[in-house]
Parts: sequence; structure tokens; C-alpha cells
Amino acid sequence: MSVTNVSITQYIDQHTLKVEAALRESVPAAWNIPQSLREAMMYSLMAGGKRLRPIFVLAAAESLGGNSESAMPVALAVEMIHTYSLIHDDLPAMDNDDFRRGKPTNHKVYGEAMAILAGDALLTHAFYTAVQASRAHDVPSGVVADIVEELSRLAGAPGMVGGQAADMEGEQGLTKLSELEYIHLHKTSDLIVFSLKAGGRIAGANDEQLAALERFGTCIGLAYQIQDDILDLIGDEQKLGKPVQSDVKQQKVTYPYFLGIDASKAKVEELTAEAKQAIAEARFAYPERLLQLADYLVKRDY
Amino acid sequence: MSVTNVSITQYIDQHTLKVEAALRESVPAAWNIPQSLREAMMYSLMAGGKRLRPIFVLAAAESLGGNSESAMPVALAVEMIHTYSLIHDDLPAMDNDDFRRGKPTNHKVYGEAMAILAGDALLTHAFYTAVQASRAHDVPSGVVADIVEELSRLAGAPGMVGGQAADMEGEQGLTKLSELEYIHLHKTSDLIVFSLKAGGRIAGANDEQLAALERFGTCIGLAYQIQDDILDLIGDEQKLGKPVQSDVKQQKVTYPYFLGIDASKAKVEELTAEAKQAIAEARFAYPERLLQLADYLVKRDY
Repeated sequence: MSVTNVSITQYIDQHTLKVEAALRESVPAAWNIPQSLREAMMYSLMAGGKRLRPIFVLAAAESLGGNSESAMPVALAVEMIHTYSLIHDDLPAMDNDDFRRGKPTNHKVYGEAMAILAGDALLTHAFYTAVQASRAHDVPSGVVADIVEELSRLAGAPGMVGGQAADMEGEQGLTKLSELEYIHLHKTSDLIVFSLKAGGRIAGANDEQLAALERFGTCIGLAYQIQDDILDLIGDEQKLGKPVQSDVKQQKVTYPYFLGIDASKAKVEELTAEAKQAIAEARFAYPERLLQLADYLVKRDY
Repeated sequence: MSVTNVSITQYIDQHTLKVEAALRESVPAAWNIPQSLREAMMYSLMAGGKRLRPIFVLAAAESLGGNSESAMPVALAVEMIHTYSLIHDDLPAMDNDDFRRGKPTNHKVYGEAMAILAGDALLTHAFYTAVQASRAHDVPSGVVADIVEELSRLAGAPGMVGGQAADMEGEQGLTKLSELEYIHLHKTSDLIVFSLKAGGRIAGANDEQLAALERFGTCIGLAYQIQDDILDLIGDEQKLGKPVQSDVKQQKVTYPYFLGIDASKAKVEELTAEAKQAIAEARFAYPERLLQLADYLVKRDY
């Protein structure tokens, strides 16, 4: 059940704390794992961030009256997938980033080889967590299998990894907006769509509701990325906590590059409205938090 | 059902052909995947090799009278996991190998970034294949969930990835045989144990039979590694198709290093006998192929 007497920022803060407490316990202490590998996994898993994807899992479950306890394992799994992708993206062979959120990246602390293995281990552990912990919370095996099937598709070659590969190839220069959209849809929207639908599945969503959650996730994922492009161009360096105009300096092709600032802002509004529309039409018991999350994501100035 | 009128080498050849035909079709043609990513995935997936792990899946299912059709998806999944681990192990930051089985390694052909992504995609696709295709063959969701849970544990931090991490750390020099054993058990035996138990689960193995398959896999996995160490020291370069004495040149600590050649050979015999004993005791309907595979692996001179 969604608690409507707390603000959306309080709601996010409360759920972030719950998610981080659960993440801290998510790799069994009893497992005999080389210490350096365990440390490298936990270093990035506990490196902070908005924990948006896990919050989407929990909020989707709550929007149908489901409890966030049984949705938590999948929330942890999606954060493990997101974390592994950041570790591998930061590698010298990929984006070659030394810092993330003000901290040295995984390979700067543990070395490239261990960073590759820590990413592989987190990716694999996401599936363990989704299955083992979900079943411990009495999620039916059929639902667990549906969730694993969708996670492996949306996080894999036709999903997130495909978006990353297209982004790499695109660095030689995109010529079409459709190419940029492919990258955003798969790099960002796919994992958000998974999060929302998995939370919904655990709370017993019907097909109409799952379709609404998919449309909601696709739209806000895209809106979120366009907003990122806009903020990089005109945002406040202090609030963002990172240098602006980096896309221009790297000559990265963005939405404002294709559409201009105003049309990009309009596109964000349009996608947010479509996302909220999808939820409104599908009769959720407690839609408030999902609607608030959509506004929160695009109204942010960081 | 196992066909007992063909030799074990014919049996292996026949199953290898079946596995390779299925691997060729294992990434849906309809999926919209960047071409370079699809090519990089298929390059390593179809690069040959003995396909031992898939054959263990199929042989275990057949040893209980199960049909190899419904076991094939899991056979493909375990080969995808094995293949991704080779792609990542060959990377410059890891073993930095330019060739594997006489062919340029993945990163030499597609570049480091794409090789990392191809590995990530194959690892993720293994779970898709195990779940989606198994269900298409009417494997019950509960069995599928058991298989995914075990694969994610034995291929992950407490399993194969953990063994790889320990191996990397060990390159500074192992001092104990127990450390070498930890590496072999997790780098090699864990995935073989998974293969055998998963094939057994699909064919309805009982707990006694699953325990026997686990003991069988642990023993032959270790025997296989010790045999590798022995062959590297005294093997025939022509038959092996790779230079011998590489461990000595790399000052790699091996079983013969700790035990000497004779005691290492005795250990291989002992482990093989224990493996066959486990199968003999657990009353399998068609144990022949598993027993023949155990002998085949240690009698090999390549």
C-alpha cells in the first residue's frame, strides 16, 4: 500500500534506505568467495545513486496493493544489473572513466581484471537473487520464471547490452534521431520497463496493467534521457554535481542537437503526459506514487 | 534413451553435431540486435571446442531415460556461460591471449569493448535460453527455477567466477595444494556439476541421483584438470594442438608440482573410480554413457 501522507521525496528516501539495507545483506556471508571479489562487488553495489530502478519495482507492486517485501528481491536484482553495467561501462576499453559519483571507479580501486569479474559476478548474482529470494517470499515459480525470462531479454543483447553496443558504434557519429532513440530505449528504458512490470507481476498485475506499466516505463525512460541531455546543456553544475556541456565538448549527438532545446523540453512534457495517461487508463488501486514519480523525474533540476 | 550400439567417441560426435546445430539457432533471428554484437556473440559461440558441458547435460538426462530434446536448452545455456567466460578470460586485462583453438580471440577480431559486451550478452542470454526454451519444452516452472538458481550460484561468485578470481590472485604464487584445489573445483568442476544435475533434474532425478551426479561431476572435473596439468608436462604437442610445458615456463603451480607425476596420475585414477562408484551406487536406468565419459576424459591424450 502506498502511504500518501508523505511527500514523494520522503517516499523515495524511505525506500532508498530499505533498498540499501537489503543490498548490504544481498551476498550471503556464508559463501566462500575470494575476499577481493566480494569487496569489489560490494564497493560498487553500495556506492550510492538514486536507486531509481528498485524504487520502480517497489512502487509498481504497491500501486496494485502488493507489499514491497516480496518485491524486494527483484528490486535488488535490477540494481545488481544496473551496477554491473556501470562497472563494465567505466572500463578503459569502454568509456574509460576514473570517477563515478565522486568516487574512484571499480577498476581504479581493484584493477581491470577484478572489475570485469566483479561485473560478471553481479550480473550472475542478480539472477540468483531474483529466483532464490523471490521463492523465499512465496512468489510462485511461474511468476519467477516470467520475471527471469523478461530480465534476461531486457538486460541482454536485444535490450540493455544491445543499447550499449549501439551507443559505442554511434560514437563514430549518429546521423538519425531514430538511432539515438534506439540507444536510449534500450540503454535506459528497457531496465525501467522490466522494473515496473516485475513489480506488477509480483503484485498480480493483469495483462492490461502490465501493458500500461510497459508504456509508462518506455515513456519516462525516454523522457529521463532527454532531460539528461537538456540539463547537460543548460543545467546548474552545482546541483548536477558534474560538469555541464560535456556532450558538446565530446561532440555527442543528443536530443537538443536534433530538435533544439524548446522542442526537446516539449518532448519531455509530452512523454510524461503519455506515461501518466497510461497509468490513469488501466485502473490501478493506488496510482499516486507512479504518477508522482513521473513528475519527479522530469521536474528534477539535477 | 542412450544408444548403446555406438562407441563413446561416435556418441560424443553425434551429440556435438546436435548441440552445434542448436547453438547456431540459439539467438533469435527476429531480435533487433546491433550486427557487430550479434557477430561477436556467434563468433565465439561457434568457435568449436569439445562441447563437453552440453554433452554432460544430455548424457545425464539420458542416463535416467529422459529425452535429450527437453534437456537441449539447458545444454545450450551452459555452453553460453562457458563461452562468455573464455571471452572475458582472454581479454588483455586477464590472460591476454591472442589465439584460442588456433583462431584469433574475440577481442582481437571485434575489439576489447565489443568482446566485453559479447561476453555480457552471452552470460545474460544463457538465462533467457534456460528459461524460455525449457518452458517451450514443457519443463515445469518449478524445475526451471531450480535450474536457474543452481546455475546462478555455480557460475557466479561462489562458483566459476570465484574460481577465476582465486586463480588470478594465485598468480602471485600458491603455497598450498588446497588453494589449487579451490581454483579447480570452482573454475572447472562447478559448471560440470551444474550440467549433470540440470540434465538429471529435467529427467526427474531423485535426491539420491542428484547427489550422485554432483559427486560424479566434482570428481571428474578435478580429474580432468589434473590430467590437463599432466599432459602439459609430458603430453604430445601434436595431439594437444598447443605447446607443452607452458605451465613450467609460466611458473604455474600445478598438481604435478605439488605431488609429482606418479602421484598425480594415481589421483586421476582414484577420482575417476570414485566418480564411477557414485553413479553405480545410485541406480540409474542407463548409466553406461556416464561411466564411458568418465573413462574417456582421463584416457584422452590430447
